[in-house]
Amino acid sequence: MYVIAVYDVNTKRVAKMLKLSRRYLNWIQNSVFEGNITPVKLKEYKIKARKIMNEDEDSLIIFQSRHEDWLEKEIIGIDKNPLDIIL
Amino acid sequence: MYVIAVYDVNTKRVAKMLKLSRRYLNWIQNSVFEGNITPVKLKEYKIKARKIMNEDEDSLIIFQSRHEDWLEKEIIGIDKNPLDIIL
Repeated sequence: MYVIAVYDVNTKRVAKMLKLSRRYLNWIQNSVFEGNITPVKLKEYKIKARKIMNEDEDSLIIFQSRHEDWLEKEIIGIDKNPLDIIL
Repeated sequence: MYVIAVYDVNTKRVAKMLKLSRRYLNWIQNSVFEGNITPVKLKEYKIKARKIMNEDEDSLIIFQSRHEDWLEKEIIGIDKNPLDIIL
């Protein structure tokens, strides 16, 4: 499935969330990640994210779409992660 | 159509982008917005965003899905904009 993940966590936890998220998804901008991921790997990501987060203060929102082509992506301005064009 | 918009703009322009984005979509977290919007209104939003942005430095990414139910949304931790539950 195709996922967009956005998090808003206390600055003390940003580095850990960034490191974790990079292992499962592609960074595209700020605290925004996207990518294709299996249900098992997504579950793993959420479990590990919960261990990092303070759920009374932090927020992780995950948008899931069963098919990548159900989502059109348009970039206005610069692409902060042009790398993903090469993949 | 259903849209998720995320922007990463120079701090000088954040306030203007926030104000503009709030007129077209629902704020959910950081610089992340979502909502149902007509093609005409989306076009209007993009034109106005371009006038605010420096496209050599800033980035606005828009994910479009023809149907809201093609996207599942899951929140882990707190919902930074509980208002949208009341809408």
